Amino acid sequence: MSHRNTAECGSETSAGREKHEVRAENIPTFLSRMRSIVSFYICYLLCLALGLACVVCVCLWNSRWRGGFAWDGSALQFNWHPVLMVTGLVVLYGNGAVLYRVPLTWGQNKLPWKLLHATLMFLALVLSIVGLCAVFGFHNAKNIANLYSLHSWIGIAAVALFAIQWVVGMAGFLLPCSPISLRALLKPVHVWMGGSILWLSIAACISGINEKLFFVLTGTQAYNNLPSEALLGNSLGVLIVAFGLVVLMILSNHKWQRPDSSPEVLAYTVRI
Amino acid sequence: MSHRNTAECGSETSAGREKHEVRAENIPTFLSRMRSIVSFYICYLLCLALGLACVVCVCLWNSRWRGGFAWDGSALQFNWHPVLMVTGLVVLYGNGAVLYRVPLTWGQNKLPWKLLHATLMFLALVLSIVGLCAVFGFHNAKNIANLYSLHSWIGIAAVALFAIQWVVGMAGFLLPCSPISLRALLKPVHVWMGGSILWLSIAACISGINEKLFFVLTGTQAYNNLPSEALLGNSLGVLIVAFGLVVLMILSNHKWQRPDSSPEVLAYTVRI
Repeated sequence: MSHRNTAECGSETSAGREKHEVRAENIPTFLSRMRSIVSFYICYLLCLALGLACVVCVCLWNSRWRGGFAWDGSALQFNWHPVLMVTGLVVLYGNGAVLYRVPLTWGQNKLPWKLLHATLMFLALVLSIVGLCAVFGFHNAKNIANLYSLHSWIGIAAVALFAIQWVVGMAGFLLPCSPISLRALLKPVHVWMGGSILWLSIAACISGINEKLFFVLTGTQAYNNLPSEALLGNSLGVLIVAFGLVVLMILSNHKWQRPDSSPEVLAYTVRI
Repeated sequence: MSHRNTAECGSETSAGREKHEVRAENIPTFLSRMRSIVSFYICYLLCLALGLACVVCVCLWNSRWRGGFAWDGSALQFNWHPVLMVTGLVVLYGNGAVLYRVPLTWGQNKLPWKLLHATLMFLALVLSIVGLCAVFGFHNAKNIANLYSLHSWIGIAAVALFAIQWVVGMAGFLLPCSPISLRALLKPVHVWMGGSILWLSIAACISGINEKLFFVLTGTQAYNNLPSEALLGNSLGVLIVAFGLVVLMILSNHKWQRPDSSPEVLAYTVRI
């Protein structure tokens, strides 16, 4: 259409018209982008709020209801286990996973964000490993067998896969010698494995909270009477699931993916 | 390039060259498609095998180790619960979810496949609801409270979301009066919610198996001694997780998505 106009009306006027048409075309695109960004930030705030609620809830449960923390082989050492697994393997991990989706990071050099992603994931991995040490130390001090329950099998699989994912991710995406073709091959596997590890961690958390509440709630405070600790533990489980759903929703929305090295990045950076 | 050749060499020869070039270009595309289809069917066979292994494993556990089945309010009625939830809410559901990814169904009228998808999901929903009735009936007969554990909260949420998903899916995608714009809006939500329901179901299964094994394995056959029943139960949990990972991998691979109403469909149908 614009080419026909140019031929009909002469170059000066038609150039103005073309400019006007392009601007008019850009308004819906711009509005659609703004809507996408606003809806992203709503989801992101929800993700941050749910993550914070999970950490507060698990800390409150273990400090107020379970007697607090220590590192002496007692039940107080065990209390570090849920706190560190929920904080590291779920909340910090989930926040590290959605980092690239934050529009603020687009159009900038990717390397600092890659380093931040790797650092957040490293911290999450360290917290998870310390969380495992807490439960192994408690079991060994009390002569309780390790790694027999389904909860422990799923949990240890999640942490092992996370460690492998971190090492492969570092080697594949951060070592300067790794070829672009390898990165392109690795990326979908890394993204899919990342989501799967989160869900495995959540399944481990749900089974762990369920198991713990059956163990500790007895007598008049039995789990089936739903005392306040049971309500708190169940609510923690629900918050963890809600956090996971929001993280996976952010990761699965293609509109929110970082538009890597496409001309769109520049256009986007100039406009917003 | 081909246009320059046409201008240089006359229409008859250049047409032959173009045909030859198009054919030469099609060989890598065709090989890439064949590779994609072969790798899909390998994953699909794995999905079917893991699903079958889950059903065999849960039936074996409840018939040989837990005494079999009845519908009389006894523990034998409870045994229907794991069998029906794993078969309906995980295996049948997962197979229903990946149906559209089977290349055999592409390039054909979508309606029969939609009806099959809806029917498989309906059967999965019915099995899940009967599975819930089994456990409610058992609890009521034994005066055990319903819906207090985190396992039950996650499980009931999965079934409730599944029921809502099925009704909204029927209304949105199968009623002839539902507009195309609504379908386009619903589809990504339907796909995301579908994956989330599967993961919720798996989290409920893992916590349920874990809880059951702690309840029933005592004395010399205690869970921490890992008797054969514990190994079978834990293996069932691992199989369920592996099944879920394969289903979610199939769903997340964009190469395996049904290329709806695109010219590719016809090209694909003619060639293969």
